[in-house]
Amino acid sequence: MPPQTDPRHGEACLIVHGPDQPGLVAVVTGLVTRHQGNIVTLDQYSDNPEGGAFFQRVVFDRPDLHAAMPAIEADLDKTLAPYGMAWTLTDRSAPKRMAVLASTSDHCLLDLLWRHRRGELPVTIPMVVSNHTNTAEDVRSFGIPFFHVPSQGPDKSEAEAKIVELLKGNVDFVVLARYMQILSDGFLEEVGVPVINIHHSFLPAFIGAAPYRKAKERGVKLIGATSHYVTKDLDEGPIIEQDVTRVDHAMTAADLQARGAYVEREVLSRAVQWHAEDRVIRHGNHTIVFE
Amino acid sequence: MPPQTDPRHGEACLIVHGPDQPGLVAVVTGLVTRHQGNIVTLDQYSDNPEGGAFFQRVVFDRPDLHAAMPAIEADLDKTLAPYGMAWTLTDRSAPKRMAVLASTSDHCLLDLLWRHRRGELPVTIPMVVSNHTNTAEDVRSFGIPFFHVPSQGPDKSEAEAKIVELLKGNVDFVVLARYMQILSDGFLEEVGVPVINIHHSFLPAFIGAAPYRKAKERGVKLIGATSHYVTKDLDEGPIIEQDVTRVDHAMTAADLQARGAYVEREVLSRAVQWHAEDRVIRHGNHTIVFE
Amino acid sequence: MPPQTDPRHGEACLIVHGPDQPGLVAVVTGLVTRHQGNIVTLDQYSDNPEGGAFFQRVVFDRPDLHAAMPAIEADLDKTLAPYGMAWTLTDRSAPKRMAVLASTSDHCLLDLLWRHRRGELPVTIPMVVSNHTNTAEDVRSFGIPFFHVPSQGPDKSEAEAKIVELLKGNVDFVVLARYMQILSDGFLEEVGVPVINIHHSFLPAFIGAAPYRKAKERGVKLIGATSHYVTKDLDEGPIIEQDVTRVDHAMTAADLQARGAYVEREVLSRAVQWHAEDRVIRHGNHTIVFE
Amino acid sequence: MPPQTDPRHGEACLIVHGPDQPGLVAVVTGLVTRHQGNIVTLDQYSDNPEGGAFFQRVVFDRPDLHAAMPAIEADLDKTLAPYGMAWTLTDRSAPKRMAVLASTSDHCLLDLLWRHRRGELPVTIPMVVSNHTNTAEDVRSFGIPFFHVPSQGPDKSEAEAKIVELLKGNVDFVVLARYMQILSDGFLEEVGVPVINIHHSFLPAFIGAAPYRKAKERGVKLIGATSHYVTKDLDEGPIIEQDVTRVDHAMTAADLQARGAYVEREVLSRAVQWHAEDRVIRHGNHTIVFE
Repeated sequence: MPPQTDPRHGEACLIVHGPDQPGLVAVVTGLVTRHQGNIVTLDQYSDNPEGGAFFQRVVFDRPDLHAAMPAIEADLDKTLAPYGMAWTLTDRSAPKRMAVLASTSDHCLLDLLWRHRRGELPVTIPMVVSNHTNTAEDVRSFGIPFFHVPSQGPDKSEAEAKIVELLKGNVDFVVLARYMQILSDGFLEEVGVPVINIHHSFLPAFIGAAPYRKAKERGVKLIGATSHYVTKDLDEGPIIEQDVTRVDHAMTAADLQARGAYVEREVLSRAVQWHAEDRVIRHGNHTIVFE
Repeated sequence: MPPQTDPRHGEACLIVHGPDQPGLVAVVTGLVTRHQGNIVTLDQYSDNPEGGAFFQRVVFDRPDLHAAMPAIEADLDKTLAPYGMAWTLTDRSAPKRMAVLASTSDHCLLDLLWRHRRGELPVTIPMVVSNHTNTAEDVRSFGIPFFHVPSQGPDKSEAEAKIVELLKGNVDFVVLARYMQILSDGFLEEVGVPVINIHHSFLPAFIGAAPYRKAKERGVKLIGATSHYVTKDLDEGPIIEQDVTRVDHAMTAADLQARGAYVEREVLSRAVQWHAEDRVIRHGNHTIVFE
Repeated sequence: MPPQTDPRHGEACLIVHGPDQPGLVAVVTGLVTRHQGNIVTLDQYSDNPEGGAFFQRVVFDRPDLHAAMPAIEADLDKTLAPYGMAWTLTDRSAPKRMAVLASTSDHCLLDLLWRHRRGELPVTIPMVVSNHTNTAEDVRSFGIPFFHVPSQGPDKSEAEAKIVELLKGNVDFVVLARYMQILSDGFLEEVGVPVINIHHSFLPAFIGAAPYRKAKERGVKLIGATSHYVTKDLDEGPIIEQDVTRVDHAMTAADLQARGAYVEREVLSRAVQWHAEDRVIRHGNHTIVFE
Repeated sequence: MPPQTDPRHGEACLIVHGPDQPGLVAVVTGLVTRHQGNIVTLDQYSDNPEGGAFFQRVVFDRPDLHAAMPAIEADLDKTLAPYGMAWTLTDRSAPKRMAVLASTSDHCLLDLLWRHRRGELPVTIPMVVSNHTNTAEDVRSFGIPFFHVPSQGPDKSEAEAKIVELLKGNVDFVVLARYMQILSDGFLEEVGVPVINIHHSFLPAFIGAAPYRKAKERGVKLIGATSHYVTKDLDEGPIIEQDVTRVDHAMTAADLQARGAYVEREVLSRAVQWHAEDRVIRHGNHTIVFE
């Protein structure tokens, strides 16, 4: 989209979080106002009014935003330091750069590429990386670079190093679109950007491998999917979004897998969109989602 | 609940709405702060950043709120007048007074009384009024006064006058819990408080009488319920909440009615709760719901 | 409802299950037909066409059903024995007798009593047993006997013995409507009828105590409830029904509990209805539910 | 999929419908059994046990099905004629041939093609026809022929004639995947096969054009989509499937359209799958769906 028609042109997103104190909302909105910002949406949450944590998201309009950013940033530093608050300020005309890691499954991957092409995801996609080649042609037909990084044998360090080399400096976050390799702690540290995963169960039910088979064995009446930030603890990272769909006794584990695929892509696309729009704040092992 | 354990003690809810202008959020939050209010939650919405309408809801903590109210109100008048904004300020320690009007169906009525008894609806219920007597004993077993106002024949004016006499000055809003009489425009004007209805269909589908029969005839695969503010235009008032449930070809119209009853009570109870917590703002024929 | 207007008068429900073999459906439907039964609904399921298990539920109309039962039963024995099939035949004009066990929570208990009063649950309720007295008045106002069996201290055997004494021979199944005592294996054996529980989480997530607190700690975006048959393994019995509702970061554990209460009563009431209508067949740790 | 691994090889689907009479289920299952068919699933429904209509769907396994078909068909004719029942018998190893008609929107079209490629839709797709060319490359990348039939000006008869020429004899049903031209009665008659549409609202709400704009104007809290068979009466044909998704006051009509797109593709794909598997029986303006 050309910048002159971009509705987000001139829009900034400010996230503030830290220890709750009286008057914080007024401090932040006052700051935005004295820099000629017009607040478009404001969301705020305290997990405990008595000594808890405070989270605020402000989207504001400001002509000549680019030129004004340094002054706003300096004022944020000066104003929020006494309160011990952390902040991030984002120019919304610059979409985040998203890499997708995939394996053989194509449903989550293609859904992201479709939604991106339809203009629904405010990101750029500089690359798709896969340990298989079956989706290469599909990905490239969207005009998106595809890199094949095989990952065989027990030692994944070489493959991970190659992926880091591709991602480093080129992307703002990474999406695992049914990427079937467990990433090492070292990889997460080196990549240094948020990594979002889609897990094919309603966590914390059916942690680990083969959740649809386990769901069949347990005889559940709903199956689900969970999108979460990846941390060192497998399947234990902060949950961004979840959803479920109804199943019945007559469905096989393969039926559950097919049915679940559509929940996976819905849940993942919502999580990606919210992350891309700075609607998700991590706090310990939780997320605050300002939908 | 005794006031000293009421988590809302000392909490106020401020609603501001009017023509959108830059800086409004900061003006309002600044005002709250200079009156020693600590903002607990803040929601805000503009239906169009260019010349649209602006809506803000602020819940704030303030010790000695009762004593401070007059000064805050005077400041609101002075501060918001230049912007042409309307406002309402509510002391949340004083629950709204809700009357329920019912007919023979008991499911919506009893669900409201149960939830109230469980402490989930921040209201008092000074009375239930019905044009039938079948629910009298149930209502009174909750310790709530029940008044029978029969409504026979084509002329409803006498019955309506009696109901107005009961309600007038005694309640802050009225809930029609499957009350099967159409209220006149005059009644709505005289009562002078919001009236919330539950309609047993997914409006605007199946407007008017017998929606479950019509749903069966049309062969829909979902049925629903809609809670809305009552206006002069039958079934056309601003929608507060809606929900649906799945049905299939094997269900009779009576089955749809039984199944739908549970959607009705869920939808109505959510609408009542949101209204009671000042989360719903009417704007033309729409509602802004800050859930 | 008087028998002459009961739509189930003269209706029988036949359940057949055992090893799958060709021709079973025809064998069963042929038998029904030769006893002048008119099939109203038929459901059938094989978990594996090659050597799996077979399940069939047939509801049929038959004038003078009562008189014909012995002949049909004798024919079922003779006809199905060669196939190794088990069967049960139920006269639907005789509703099952359901006992409810409860503790202090009233939402599931009252919902069952109220649905029963509306004529939606084809059961009789000979008694409610509770280890607390707070719901006694409510229960008795429905015209249902209430028995108080306190359960204090670590040794539950005396209390269990008293409950068995009340239930034995008087009921066809037992519902634990948020009954907060763990039942011993001996109790389950002695009672000898199915026991249905409602667990306040989406099993197998958050097994054990305090699931809403655990859900809050894990930061899930949906909470749920599960109704299952009680077995020796706590929270591991065959699942009959489950459902979920959406929650967000701003809800406290107490909010989750209040919101979840309405999922619990919906899920439990569906499970009870399906069980009462012979729609649920247990098979290992699974259920076949012919909705 | 090669026939030898097709799990439906040797499977037939028999649909029987007509006036309800005692013993029909036994008559049909007896016939299947005497032709060495092993019943895999059986669904049956009577809309009124007293003089209503009867519907039965039987899927059965039969080695050498192809060779046995003529004898089974002759027996069906002979056996069912006295009861006045209609029937259709389908060899499930021969998938139905589905044409897709589309306009500029690609979301429903691509979703169908992708599900087909994953092996989830038991159909062949001999062609996609569109009155625009924007999706041509995408369609052909799936290996499926794309035909462009422009439709300009008020007289659609020439375009319709061309489409009929393409479809006639080549397809078993037609799917309108957001095809934005109204088809004439003559077209429907000439094509002579079922035509399935996806309407972007929860019918009967918002019949006609621009349903998302109308939904925004009415302020509904849920939006939906409806898949139905096309009849002469626009938006009035028998409904196959519907679903909804939650929206709120902050969403613009464009947001509703984007959100609704995903409901549309889910609903359409379910309707197509059920139709392709002979699970949908039309009866007047209703459908019986044996899910």
